[in-house]
Amino acid sequence: MAEIGIGIIGGGYMGKAHAVAFSAVGAVFDTTLRPRLEMVAASTESSAASYAKSYGFARSTGDWRVLVADADVQAIVIASPPETHLEITRAAAALGKPVFCEKPLGRSVEDGKEMVQAVEAARAVNMIGFNYIRTPASQYARALIAEGEIGDITWFRGEHTEDFYADPDAPATWRAQGDSNGCMGDLAPHMINAALALIGPIGSVMAEIETVHKTRGGAPVTNDDQGQIMCRFTNGAMGHLFFSRTATGRKMGYIYEVTGTRGAIRFDQEDQNALWLYKAEGPEAQRGFRKILTGPAHPDYEPFCQGPGHGTGYQDQIIIEARDFLAAIEAGKSRWPTFRDGLEVSNIVEAARRSHAARAWQDVNHG
Amino acid sequence: MAEIGIGIIGGGYMGKAHAVAFSAVGAVFDTTLRPRLEMVAASTESSAASYAKSYGFARSTGDWRVLVADADVQAIVIASPPETHLEITRAAAALGKPVFCEKPLGRSVEDGKEMVQAVEAARAVNMIGFNYIRTPASQYARALIAEGEIGDITWFRGEHTEDFYADPDAPATWRAQGDSNGCMGDLAPHMINAALALIGPIGSVMAEIETVHKTRGGAPVTNDDQGQIMCRFTNGAMGHLFFSRTATGRKMGYIYEVTGTRGAIRFDQEDQNALWLYKAEGPEAQRGFRKILTGPAHPDYEPFCQGPGHGTGYQDQIIIEARDFLAAIEAGKSRWPTFRDGLEVSNIVEAARRSHAARAWQDVNHG
Amino acid sequence: MAEIGIGIIGGGYMGKAHAVAFSAVGAVFDTTLRPRLEMVAASTESSAASYAKSYGFARSTGDWRVLVADADVQAIVIASPPETHLEITRAAAALGKPVFCEKPLGRSVEDGKEMVQAVEAARAVNMIGFNYIRTPASQYARALIAEGEIGDITWFRGEHTEDFYADPDAPATWRAQGDSNGCMGDLAPHMINAALALIGPIGSVMAEIETVHKTRGGAPVTNDDQGQIMCRFTNGAMGHLFFSRTATGRKMGYIYEVTGTRGAIRFDQEDQNALWLYKAEGPEAQRGFRKILTGPAHPDYEPFCQGPGHGTGYQDQIIIEARDFLAAIEAGKSRWPTFRDGLEVSNIVEAARRSHAARAWQDVNHG
Amino acid sequence: MAEIGIGIIGGGYMGKAHAVAFSAVGAVFDTTLRPRLEMVAASTESSAASYAKSYGFARSTGDWRVLVADADVQAIVIASPPETHLEITRAAAALGKPVFCEKPLGRSVEDGKEMVQAVEAARAVNMIGFNYIRTPASQYARALIAEGEIGDITWFRGEHTEDFYADPDAPATWRAQGDSNGCMGDLAPHMINAALALIGPIGSVMAEIETVHKTRGGAPVTNDDQGQIMCRFTNGAMGHLFFSRTATGRKMGYIYEVTGTRGAIRFDQEDQNALWLYKAEGPEAQRGFRKILTGPAHPDYEPFCQGPGHGTGYQDQIIIEARDFLAAIEAGKSRWPTFRDGLEVSNIVEAARRSHAARAWQDVNHG
Ligand SMILES: NC(=O)C1=CN([C@@H]2O[C@H](COP(=O)(O)OP(=O)(O)OC[C@H]3O[C@@H](n4cnc5c(N)ncnc54)[C@H](O)[C@@H]3O)[C@@H](O)[C@H]2O)C=CC1
Ligand SMILES: NC(=O)C1=CN([C@@H]2O[C@H](COP(=O)(O)OP(=O)(O)OC[C@H]3O[C@@H](n4cnc5c(N)ncnc54)[C@H](O)[C@@H]3O)[C@@H](O)[C@H]2O)C=CC1
Ligand SMILES: NC(=O)C1=CN([C@@H]2O[C@H](COP(=O)(O)OP(=O)(O)OC[C@H]3O[C@@H](n4cnc5c(N)ncnc54)[C@H](O)[C@@H]3O)[C@@H](O)[C@H]2O)C=CC1
Ligand SMILES: NC(=O)C1=CN([C@@H]2O[C@H](COP(=O)(O)OP(=O)(O)OC[C@H]3O[C@@H](n4cnc5c(N)ncnc54)[C@H](O)[C@@H]3O)[C@@H](O)[C@H]2O)C=CC1
Repeated sequence: MAEIGIGIIGGGYMGKAHAVAFSAVGAVFDTTLRPRLEMVAASTESSAASYAKSYGFARSTGDWRVLVADADVQAIVIASPPETHLEITRAAAALGKPVFCEKPLGRSVEDGKEMVQAVEAARAVNMIGFNYIRTPASQYARALIAEGEIGDITWFRGEHTEDFYADPDAPATWRAQGDSNGCMGDLAPHMINAALALIGPIGSVMAEIETVHKTRGGAPVTNDDQGQIMCRFTNGAMGHLFFSRTATGRKMGYIYEVTGTRGAIRFDQEDQNALWLYKAEGPEAQRGFRKILTGPAHPDYEPFCQGPGHGTGYQDQIIIEARDFLAAIEAGKSRWPTFRDGLEVSNIVEAARRSHAARAWQDVNHG
Repeated sequence: MAEIGIGIIGGGYMGKAHAVAFSAVGAVFDTTLRPRLEMVAASTESSAASYAKSYGFARSTGDWRVLVADADVQAIVIASPPETHLEITRAAAALGKPVFCEKPLGRSVEDGKEMVQAVEAARAVNMIGFNYIRTPASQYARALIAEGEIGDITWFRGEHTEDFYADPDAPATWRAQGDSNGCMGDLAPHMINAALALIGPIGSVMAEIETVHKTRGGAPVTNDDQGQIMCRFTNGAMGHLFFSRTATGRKMGYIYEVTGTRGAIRFDQEDQNALWLYKAEGPEAQRGFRKILTGPAHPDYEPFCQGPGHGTGYQDQIIIEARDFLAAIEAGKSRWPTFRDGLEVSNIVEAARRSHAARAWQDVNHG
Repeated sequence: MAEIGIGIIGGGYMGKAHAVAFSAVGAVFDTTLRPRLEMVAASTESSAASYAKSYGFARSTGDWRVLVADADVQAIVIASPPETHLEITRAAAALGKPVFCEKPLGRSVEDGKEMVQAVEAARAVNMIGFNYIRTPASQYARALIAEGEIGDITWFRGEHTEDFYADPDAPATWRAQGDSNGCMGDLAPHMINAALALIGPIGSVMAEIETVHKTRGGAPVTNDDQGQIMCRFTNGAMGHLFFSRTATGRKMGYIYEVTGTRGAIRFDQEDQNALWLYKAEGPEAQRGFRKILTGPAHPDYEPFCQGPGHGTGYQDQIIIEARDFLAAIEAGKSRWPTFRDGLEVSNIVEAARRSHAARAWQDVNHG
Repeated sequence: MAEIGIGIIGGGYMGKAHAVAFSAVGAVFDTTLRPRLEMVAASTESSAASYAKSYGFARSTGDWRVLVADADVQAIVIASPPETHLEITRAAAALGKPVFCEKPLGRSVEDGKEMVQAVEAARAVNMIGFNYIRTPASQYARALIAEGEIGDITWFRGEHTEDFYADPDAPATWRAQGDSNGCMGDLAPHMINAALALIGPIGSVMAEIETVHKTRGGAPVTNDDQGQIMCRFTNGAMGHLFFSRTATGRKMGYIYEVTGTRGAIRFDQEDQNALWLYKAEGPEAQRGFRKILTGPAHPDYEPFCQGPGHGTGYQDQIIIEARDFLAAIEAGKSRWPTFRDGLEVSNIVEAARRSHAARAWQDVNHG
């Protein structure tokens, strides 16, 4: 059992989530590597200091370069805005340090490519933060599909819908500016990643993207509020994806429905401890979608609780992520989803933007 | 209170449903016109005779022309396959008789146009059988949206999914042959009609249609199993429609989700007595989708039962239809949805087929 | 196919329901006996005449004795208040006419006993109106339990809860007066009948009954608003029953949960087309309550609709009842639930009242 | 920000949960007191050492007295079996150390009384582990009821049902022996505490308790599998409680339904992030139970996640508990639920046992 010094850049929504996760992960998963909250960086010295005090970091800095360079920081978590991801990654990779980056992989496909090159060239362990796919329910869904439990996949429907920007009067903050802060940049990646994880690669897309509220409080909005993608998976399955931040009433609509020739699966993150499974077997009169409650029989559940149906939550997903990142570091080998997997997600967003502009189907550029 | 002689062509799935409906509608709705089951027609004399005996018709015939021409048949219900709709309509219209036709409006847009011309030229009362939109829940959903209860509509998602053809080994019967028996011809119209009724006209579509199981039991399948449409409503709302008869686990997936700027609505025909409504008002902590159970406070419920939550079923939708058809006859004026409304649905199916072929957005031809 | 003249006493809530049912049942079930709405009786000549016109009866009367005695009335349906049940039954039995009586079996156990004696002595076909147990879902639940699909029963929970009297300001009408109009008299019988049908006889009870709102609009309330019963079935299973007409938010809370050693069943009439089944078999990770949608694979569904998940409603239950009553008449043999079965339900209500008064467990007097 | 040394006795199910909670609580809640995992005790030196290594304790011991006496252990968590609770409490109280004890409060009411006396005499900060009532949803339910949002309470139904002992062939381990390990001792306290917290004191009970499977694998079972209680709250509300560990299909059936004169609440721990609220206000046609997803607008949610609907889980409840215990220590004042509150729960279990034996209503002995 060895200690490892963790440096986190950003102390906001996700910075805190990762700080809590690294505090708890050792006890939860009995990890070989034991994380130590070594340093936190933020945009100012004072906010960083305040984060350090709150979350329990040993030190803080207003300059992420200091954090990256620090000898006691042996692994780096990027939880700052997308425009910072590339530069931080370059610096971390230059030192060969393991780096975990929150989604999305930078501002754009270009950023993403450079980030992949940087970590791969440096053989730095890398991972991207698609936490939702790590719930016990979604891990189990992946396994069921992979094992052929529901047969050949004939249809996939996914959505990521929230309503934090549904109110037309909500002000035009930074959220309303820049592609990577729009709905396609910010929300879409999670569900695209799920689609890839559950079904496989996407070959082509036909998309439509729009800004529902073109001004907010008088100020212009320069990015999108919602978008939809018809897609074709390379295994032949037809699919549809929808993303919205103006989906009134939806709080965490990370939803997927997978139809196979022998069964079907449904999932809604708003009830993340349930997985709905239909199997086309047994007497017709007894068939129906069954609501499976996650428990020790499902992946990564038992370390959180011995009782089935007792439930895991958002923070637990980040703890599972932390475990995987530590395991990757220990093994010296990146784990899914790597930066390259994150880039594939960005490739699909990029193809969707192309399709929207061309009003035509577009092939996805892989790699 | 006057009697009216009803003639029904077809005694299968829908022929029976209409026969039952006309038996019950008078008592349920205390209608002014009281239907009398005068004659039933089927493809053979003997099957027609057997239907007459089962359902209680006074007479039967193996030739629908006899039925249409009969003086005691004062209103005609077409519940035979789509390929018969046009010719029967022409004959009925020629005599100026009221005609109710099951969806879809013939085999194609061409059939539909001729059917509209026939009834309109003859000023014959006409109606098309989109029964699902007549549940108390869906009628109420229409009213809520029309009254602006959920604000401006920003998103519509509809699907009609069933799994009666999910099994790849199900044989290639007549269901597997001919456009009007495929998924786009058979299932799509109901939900397209719902989209139009709830949101308004559709301006353009981008569609993808496919045959999931290209052969069945060795025999070729010549029509489609599923299709999806991205659409733009003329009021600006973005939408998506999905139709499938291979949706394993789905029995009656007539589902819609409507997002507005001030609320949202969800409905699933598999639980047809519940309407889910979200209103973006009141304390944040108390907001949520409410499950409204239909009752006497909702349209056309009370005649079936004085108790809320006691529920109506499939057959009751057909009874509501029968009431509307009788009321239209009495008033001498067609009621929504007329053949023209049915044609608009066919126009969208046609545009979807064009779009699929062209792999491009297509405008809908109205009228 | 022979006609049978039906006479219905009462044209209110249930009188109408039965009138509609007898109008439709022939076409739905292709019954051998075909009902003819011969006569309706009500408390006044004029209301009876109005019912006749609305529902389509040939004749009407303000005196139920006229109806019972009429030669063309060959079967009698009692849909008038409980205080009329005994006398009408006596008159009908005296003529040996088949009689269907709405629940409850008269005002009291005493009424019920006399009613049973009357019909049994006269060998008159008899049946009582516990319609809810006749849904396809509840019929199937009975079958599953009877066939041992969920093993030995270890627990039963039932409730019948509505909120029509939840408002303390609702006036003290006839509903607020007299035992048979109270919650135990009016609502309890349906669920007690379900308990007996699903699990078997009840040996002893421990009950608590109360009047939640002791005055309404200043006037005193002389009957009960809610009650609960702990019970022991003779097969050893433990149970609990709850009844309330002040259950705010509950519209049709006819709910049961049955636990067995190998599975469990849940049902809620508010979603009457779904039956929830859990089976303790197969991989632990795939276990869960499955939501079975009723369809042609379930009892008495197909005559209403060929499509699964399309749903039946309240009125359809009454149609199923009518079919059973006609079949009993044809066979000359009463069908479950007979008056005797209705009496057993009354016996349990009576034992509950005793238990409440004695504040002690009481055995149920059978017979 | 001061550190505090935590000693946990027991490293099993709950010992681990508390170890994780104290690891994370500082970062989650920015607590003033920062816990340090100082020492863990278990039944053997080696198991304690192994727990220490896994969970990250500085030291371990096979003798809980060593832990209690240790100067660097400034607060004690009892997560060992009920038979150890009294003695440990006495020792901790003798030193005036703050003590958190897992439910139930010892083996019996007698144990509980002594434990209360010990901590109260010593003025030691004390708290009992009823974690489920601390979810954001249940905290909010308490608040809604307390503020009168649903009016006067007329009915309460609670259950705690699981199925870990549903299989008749599950062996007769320690779980099958001794009152405090039976269903009434082990499961009942959580829901009884909820009833008290949501509605208020219980005055009298009428109970029935039973051993469903009297032998397991040939060996006798000496405690109960399920029990039910009819109860009367001192505010007049009627209630019912049910507990079972043989409830096939139920994984975490901590369920309550509260009916008030102006609304109603439903909760099921199996979907712990949803609270169902019905309000008898607004247009009848728009009333229904709304599914409120917990979020930052609800108690103690935001520190876990800024996004509503993202969800908290079992472990998070224990973190909230840890925050409350630390806050109590800091304030030098016990927080609800204290040992005295735990004793009241035991008093109700005791009254239920008396009632079962006497087959009669029994008053609850308070204090
Ligand atoms: N996986 C998930 O569920 C979620 C992921 N995210 C992702 O996490 C990342 C961060 O988002 P949030 O935590 O929501 O943002 P936030 O606004 O809550 O926090 C951003 C943090 O970054 C720091 N920061 C900004 N610029 C910096 C710089 N140049 N140097 C050092 N620190 C800097 C700020 O001081 C702040 O502490 C984004 O990539 C976002 O897409 C965000 C929310 C949820
Ligand atoms: N609204 C709804 O929910 C549904 C509507 N439909 C529609 O109802 C129509 C009928 O479909 P089903 O009832 O399912 O078909 P079916 O196959 O059950 O019955 C068809 C009936 O038409 C009769 N028929 C066929 N050719 C005839 C001819 N030339 N002359 C006279 N009778 C003829 C047959 O004898 C048979 O009785 C179709 O347009 C279909 O799309 C079907 C099912 C559900
Ligand atoms: N199975 C079920 O779901 C339900 C059963 N019921 C039962 O049905 C019976 C009737 O109740 P509702 O229909 O709700 O009552 P209602 O008040 O709606 O109708 C009662 C009818 O009985 C008639 N009536 C009263 N006294 C009469 C007399 N002396 N002679 C002839 N007619 C007389 C009235 O004119 C009226 O038409 C009751 O036994 C009730 O418990 C009621 C509602 C639901
Ligand atoms: N709040 C909740 O959700 C739950 C509470 N509990 C309660 O937690 C307590 C512990 O139960 P579990 O964690 O399930 O038990 P467990 O069997 O998983 O662990 C018991 C632990 O206590 C230790 N222990 C036993 N005797 C000891 C002694 N004399 N000295 C020192 N250590 C000793 C054992 O070594 C073991 O580490 C019980 O009071 C139980 O009722 C249990 C499960 C859930």
